[in-house]
Amino acid sequence: MANSKFEYVRQFESHDVLLPQTYIVVRVDGKKFHEFSKFYDFDKPNDIRALKLMNASAKNVVLKYKSDMILAFGESDEYSFILRKDSVLFNRRSDKLATLFGSLFTSNYVALWPKFFTDRPLDLKHLPYFDARCVLYPSLPIVKDYLSWRFVDTHINNLYNTAFWQLVLKCGMTAQESENRLSGTVSSEKQEILFTDCGINYNNEPEIFKKGSLITKKGDIIHVDVIKEIDQLFEGC
Amino acid sequence: MANSKFEYVRQFESHDVLLPQTYIVVRVDGKKFHEFSKFYDFDKPNDIRALKLMNASAKNVVLKYKSDMILAFGESDEYSFILRKDSVLFNRRSDKLATLFGSLFTSNYVALWPKFFTDRPLDLKHLPYFDARCVLYPSLPIVKDYLSWRFVDTHINNLYNTAFWQLVLKCGMTAQESENRLSGTVSSEKQEILFTDCGINYNNEPEIFKKGSLITKKGDIIHVDVIKEIDQLFEGC
Amino acid sequence: MANSKFEYVRQFESHDVLLPQTYIVVRVDGKKFHEFSKFYDFDKPNDIRALKLMNASAKNVVLKYKSDMILAFGESDEYSFILRKDSVLFNRRSDKLATLFGSLFTSNYVALWPKFFTDRPLDLKHLPYFDARCVLYPSLPIVKDYLSWRFVDTHINNLYNTAFWQLVLKCGMTAQESENRLSGTVSSEKQEILFTDCGINYNNEPEIFKKGSLITKKGDIIHVDVIKEIDQLFEGC
Amino acid sequence: MANSKFEYVRQFESHDVLLPQTYIVVRVDGKKFHEFSKFYDFDKPNDIRALKLMNASAKNVVLKYKSDMILAFGESDEYSFILRKDSVLFNRRSDKLATLFGSLFTSNYVALWPKFFTDRPLDLKHLPYFDARCVLYPSLPIVKDYLSWRFVDTHINNLYNTAFWQLVLKCGMTAQESENRLSGTVSSEKQEILFTDCGINYNNEPEIFKKGSLITKKGDIIHVDVIKEIDQLFEGC
Repeated sequence: MANSKFEYVRQFESHDVLLPQTYIVVRVDGKKFHEFSKFYDFDKPNDIRALKLMNASAKNVVLKYKSDMILAFGESDEYSFILRKDSVLFNRRSDKLATLFGSLFTSNYVALWPKFFTDRPLDLKHLPYFDARCVLYPSLPIVKDYLSWRFVDTHINNLYNTAFWQLVLKCGMTAQESENRLSGTVSSEKQEILFTDCGINYNNEPEIFKKGSLITKKGDIIHVDVIKEIDQLFEGC
Repeated sequence: MANSKFEYVRQFESHDVLLPQTYIVVRVDGKKFHEFSKFYDFDKPNDIRALKLMNASAKNVVLKYKSDMILAFGESDEYSFILRKDSVLFNRRSDKLATLFGSLFTSNYVALWPKFFTDRPLDLKHLPYFDARCVLYPSLPIVKDYLSWRFVDTHINNLYNTAFWQLVLKCGMTAQESENRLSGTVSSEKQEILFTDCGINYNNEPEIFKKGSLITKKGDIIHVDVIKEIDQLFEGC
Repeated sequence: MANSKFEYVRQFESHDVLLPQTYIVVRVDGKKFHEFSKFYDFDKPNDIRALKLMNASAKNVVLKYKSDMILAFGESDEYSFILRKDSVLFNRRSDKLATLFGSLFTSNYVALWPKFFTDRPLDLKHLPYFDARCVLYPSLPIVKDYLSWRFVDTHINNLYNTAFWQLVLKCGMTAQESENRLSGTVSSEKQEILFTDCGINYNNEPEIFKKGSLITKKGDIIHVDVIKEIDQLFEGC
Repeated sequence: MANSKFEYVRQFESHDVLLPQTYIVVRVDGKKFHEFSKFYDFDKPNDIRALKLMNASAKNVVLKYKSDMILAFGESDEYSFILRKDSVLFNRRSDKLATLFGSLFTSNYVALWPKFFTDRPLDLKHLPYFDARCVLYPSLPIVKDYLSWRFVDTHINNLYNTAFWQLVLKCGMTAQESENRLSGTVSSEKQEILFTDCGINYNNEPEIFKKGSLITKKGDIIHVDVIKEIDQLFEGC
């Protein structure tokens, strides 16, 4: 940047540097994706094209920064990128990490859209965008709990959404009736309802729906029981 | 989000809230655009398609948040969005403002690309992305100085780049020779060189190159002498 | 500090620099002073020795940093130091400002104690201490509102406390009876009760109780109606 | 605090909460103690009264917050308090921790002064004060390195200061001559000079000078080789 007498205004900038030797999670989250998914008629309860687009976008982010990456995990309209504790990417500047991950993810999402939504071009008045944030975790057990948290969230949300939508789509319930039917039920009861009322065995649902997607730092996309494999997933970290 | 015993990990999140009643500038900046512009063979010293794409993307951001916006100013691969001091957009959360402006801008840039680069599709290995930051300014005179700073930067950079590239393109100098020729010269000397050596009257260069682009909150894109019109630009703020 | 291979630990330090050209208020606040004032048998509702000790301590802070100071205001166990917006004291480092003001105030409070509590030495098991914080205000009208806020707080608290304790001390009410008597009353009613039940004209109470204490940057301690004189108090700022 | 229309000014306050499950070091540091020690004629290179006063003040801080404390370490005019990673003292608010530790330390230092400087009362124009800061360390090995850093600093500074002052006091050198004599020497050479020129065996110097002071959470003050005993010191953490 060129010098001028106005340049003093740069002194008003401030930059948060994230605590060294601490795991960084950058979580990217769809903004108003409820509305967005409605506009583009996403399949309910899960749109496989949308999930694959999320995965493909995240994979490109992982591969670009793979030497800093442990793994990434995604579900619905969010993706968490877990960075090594010794990463010095962007000098650990919080704003750089959040905005650049968010922007690169967005860039991929828009550019890859036609590959997954082949017959539905993006409308310029309804473009996707994402927020992003950095969260610090000081130790590996807590990072594992972070990933477990997102995994359990995936499971609980997907089981509810699957039951809710199947009651609507297969049994002809209204949204309100479906909500009432599921209200207060625990997981096993939701699975029972799904089986009895809709003839659906939840265990046979696609893995990507039930387990979310995990991207290794090599870029492999897998669907695993995070809770069971949590130690293996972080082996060597 | 669903509850689970892992949810305690949310306590590690922190959110910076920007000081109330203070002007917010969100500046979006191209990441490695030197490389990017080379890959896509941008015209030198200015690529009118690229500038218009920046403007079109920024305009959509301005229009989306127009009730919070005073104006936006762009040059080269950067855009500054100046928000009202009483804006409570995203509850003035710094990370939300920076990442959402950055992401929405990126989304527009990628989606609008084919409209401006009609014969050069984006390559998935070379996607554009942007960082973004929030800067606070406590008073109107300092905000005006901020805008003046970016305007002077535009002028100085464009004059240098125009002279540099014309010496190369019109006079057949090497990059090194051109750099030497301009080294240590002040503005008037650069204009003189441009005129004498290349037959170019800098005053006749396009306004968008010399003055950058300013977007009013109504979405009008204008090219004005910011220094001269600075008070008018902020009238009523 | 000497060099060693362990020195990398300094990289974990971070320093918040306060936004330039913004008014800084450093507010020092007694820690557990309810307990403290009980232990040392402070007079109720106001202990003139304690207030004068607060003032003397604050005055020394004001005089030490007078070129950065606009004024200071104190009531009860708290003191607010209002610094000029162009102050660069301690390079505007938030932690330096808060801890040094807090420590210097404390140092004075303890050293000056015997001068005000002549017959009651400090007990090493019950020493006074204070927290401190920096708050930023971007414009003069808001700084004025800050001071008005503390002034109104002084008035409301003192009127309540005066009425509460006089009902206890003069009318022989229990604390509960006094609280009930005052519950739901507005200012004028409290003054009426004070007059009718206890024969006390609130207007005749000492100014230091009713109005708190204001220290000018020259070190003069005055007791004024802040609301009425607010513009004068900040004249030239 | 009482309500009023001015109370909105509280929205300008912000509070940094320190990352959970991370070790907190609060370091208290004398402000301009070079000047302070000169005014009160501290013995050179070490004043045993001043060190014992530091220790007594720190011990009271340790005992007050002992359930949050791992240990404290002091040398010269500074003290580091190392808190457990699961401490939630003051809700882990950074400003509260720094200002209250700093203030309580100061309060003790001033109140205890007459006990250690029996014939030299504090002068109100030359009161001691301290800054304080919080630093976060994410893991035990790094906390150990922090403590080792302060210990090595103690050793290096004390060896230099001892040699410097003995050359001045015993050998009649000027400050400049003493500095020149020591310039560029390593530790073993300084010890050699001390022995040859001044007849002083550094090993026989008081432990408190050579090793600084460490306070256990029970309040015991010990002087140990921190590097050798580092693992033992943090046993059970």
